[in-house]
Amino acid sequence: ERFGFFAYDACVVESLDLLKRKAGEEIVDQIYHFTDKSNRELALRPEMTPTFARMVSARATAMPKPIRWFSIPQLFRYERPQRGRLREHFQLNMDIVGGRGIAADAEVVAAAIDCLRALGLNARDFVARISDRHLIRGVLLALGLPEAKLLHAFAALDRVDKESEQWVIDRLCAAGGDEEAGRRVLSLRNSTLEDIARDYGSSEEVVESVGRLERLFDHLSGYGLGEYVTFDPKLVRGLDYYTGLVFEVWERSGNLRAICGGGRYDNLLASLGGVDLPAAGFGMGDVVLAELLRVRGLVPESGADVQDYVVVVSPEVQAPALRLVCGLREAGRRVAFDLSGRSVGRQFKAANQAGVTRAIVVGPDEIARGVVRVREMATGDEYETSVDSLVAEGFRFHS
Amino acid sequence: ERFGFFAYDACVVESLDLLKRKAGEEIVDQIYHFTDKSNRELALRPEMTPTFARMVSARATAMPKPIRWFSIPQLFRYERPQRGRLREHFQLNMDIVGGRGIAADAEVVAAAIDCLRALGLNARDFVARISDRHLIRGVLLALGLPEAKLLHAFAALDRVDKESEQWVIDRLCAAGGDEEAGRRVLSLRNSTLEDIARDYGSSEEVVESVGRLERLFDHLSGYGLGEYVTFDPKLVRGLDYYTGLVFEVWERSGNLRAICGGGRYDNLLASLGGVDLPAAGFGMGDVVLAELLRVRGLVPESGADVQDYVVVVSPEVQAPALRLVCGLREAGRRVAFDLSGRSVGRQFKAANQAGVTRAIVVGPDEIARGVVRVREMATGDEYETSVDSLVAEGFRFHS
Repeated sequence: ERFGFFAYDACVVESLDLLKRKAGEEIVDQIYHFTDKSNRELALRPEMTPTFARMVSARATAMPKPIRWFSIPQLFRYERPQRGRLREHFQLNMDIVGGRGIAADAEVVAAAIDCLRALGLNARDFVARISDRHLIRGVLLALGLPEAKLLHAFAALDRVDKESEQWVIDRLCAAGGDEEAGRRVLSLRNSTLEDIARDYGSSEEVVESVGRLERLFDHLSGYGLGEYVTFDPKLVRGLDYYTGLVFEVWERSGNLRAICGGGRYDNLLASLGGVDLPAAGFGMGDVVLAELLRVRGLVPESGADVQDYVVVVSPEVQAPALRLVCGLREAGRRVAFDLSGRSVGRQFKAANQAGVTRAIVVGPDEIARGVVRVREMATGDEYETSVDSLVAEGFRFHS
Repeated sequence: ERFGFFAYDACVVESLDLLKRKAGEEIVDQIYHFTDKSNRELALRPEMTPTFARMVSARATAMPKPIRWFSIPQLFRYERPQRGRLREHFQLNMDIVGGRGIAADAEVVAAAIDCLRALGLNARDFVARISDRHLIRGVLLALGLPEAKLLHAFAALDRVDKESEQWVIDRLCAAGGDEEAGRRVLSLRNSTLEDIARDYGSSEEVVESVGRLERLFDHLSGYGLGEYVTFDPKLVRGLDYYTGLVFEVWERSGNLRAICGGGRYDNLLASLGGVDLPAAGFGMGDVVLAELLRVRGLVPESGADVQDYVVVVSPEVQAPALRLVCGLREAGRRVAFDLSGRSVGRQFKAANQAGVTRAIVVGPDEIARGVVRVREMATGDEYETSVDSLVAEGFRFHS
């Protein structure tokens, strides 16, 4: 919301056909799907992008551009659960539709980084690795790989950290390259933008892309995010539909899976039968992120513990005790009290178990004097105060 | 949370068998269900209670009682959508497990009412209609209906407002009553608690139930909710598992469906194979509630409109403009700015369309003097201020 994004939401059930159009027939084996009583093929969505494309396409014409939308959908996969990948998870999606330049690319990357900073993570914890499909495309074309097989070459590069050098070279040869091209692609792994500009200076596409990436990094430095981003020449991302910017956020040590992935997908909306508008965005799942937050001790408190427990000393003060409960709740305090006529000792025990900050004791003597007794549970300190000031304090504290 | 309830959540997919155990075989026709790849019968849950029962049963033994849990699950029905009933909706569920007395019943009813008051509704907008299954049971037994057919008699009473008098009498006769019993049940419609205590004074169950209900209404008056509640002798609720308190919240005119329904279900958890603990709770759907809020003009603002639009006069002030954007966002403001190098005029137009409160103009002359120009969009007022004070104001406003 700080980035001016607008929340959208949709049903967890999506048309199987739409999901297949985005991800191919093979998606069917990886998701929960079923036929409903009207013989419609439906599925529990495994990703939000097709739904986003459908929704934004239905409204885009009438909306001012760029459109900034976010959602935190629940997603489902049908696969064996493993570390960092569960069958059910939530994923923050942020997308900008209708902006094409460096500024929109930077805004998307900055938004992803800002979300993680808002959770207390910093540049020692994570890094956004950034590249551009045009750059890699220019390099591969300059190395003589045929345009028609570039997606196969991307797929080989995508696995450069996971497979042997020979595996990558074999794949690149299968994609129309030769042994020498394969070796040069492997040497990209440690190249800087300057290296690539020098080695492939004759390719207009490479030179342009290097310039674009340099301006993108400048722009991100303008956001104060220079130490959060790095160029990663081997990053292409597994998905075929990216057309420019690609990026992933990783925990610094690389021990976890990617926290977030995204990029620019200027043709996807049109290819799904929607509007023909450029777009960029990312998805950030909760599973890897939660693992990182746990390791760093940064899991947010739920903030919903009961705060006050009202102890009722005897039945004749039930009415004023209830008024106090209502007054404190009205003032925004989270308040519980005994519901079954338990002894004062057992009420204190219940207050302790509930982890409250204060026990507020309502007894006949105190009520006769217009006060209640407050026990601060952490210290055991006790003091008397008027009901009115207790309630007023609640209002002050929460307004 | 003000009532000391703890949030729980669960997957939208539930075991079909568990849903059938709670609601009977006929539920299968009313829901989305499917067989997964491991041949498990699953369904999109139509209600949260079975899931709640499963989760609370797995944990109840180790937890201090009473257990207060709430959730706002997404629920699904497979039926023709109609006014007030959609195929997909959200429903607030609040339940107390392990409390048995009037105080727990009152707490549940008070929580339902408090939720509606928190949304701005008051006693002129809605009323909670309350009864007790024991009371109606006592009356029906006193009228000679056989115990074994009481659920059929409840079902007849449940439709007293929707069907003809003869229909109700026929059903009561089918449930083992006679014409005279049928007429006396019909006359219940306008009876007060006092009427019933007088007419059925020889039934111990009726006398006890009237006493309980009177204490419940006293207790609710203690919450300051006397004007929000009323006794409704024809209220039994359609579901068989209620064992005591039953209540529904209705819009005053009765033009809408029930906003909320609940009661005490002391045997349900055990009958679903879980813990044997008394429980009471309610469900409040979002569809009827949203309709009422729309009629009353009380639909909450999303609160996520963009607040500031930073207008960049020329490329050379891009960097200070970006710093301002970051500073304002850091201070909690919701900020958008141009991503595609548009003219100042078109940036103002975009600011207008986004409905922002302020346009903040960053120009070379102003930056040279260390200031920016602020235009209040509602009034058109313009003034100059320093970037620092603008950002500091954001922090003050949002901390």
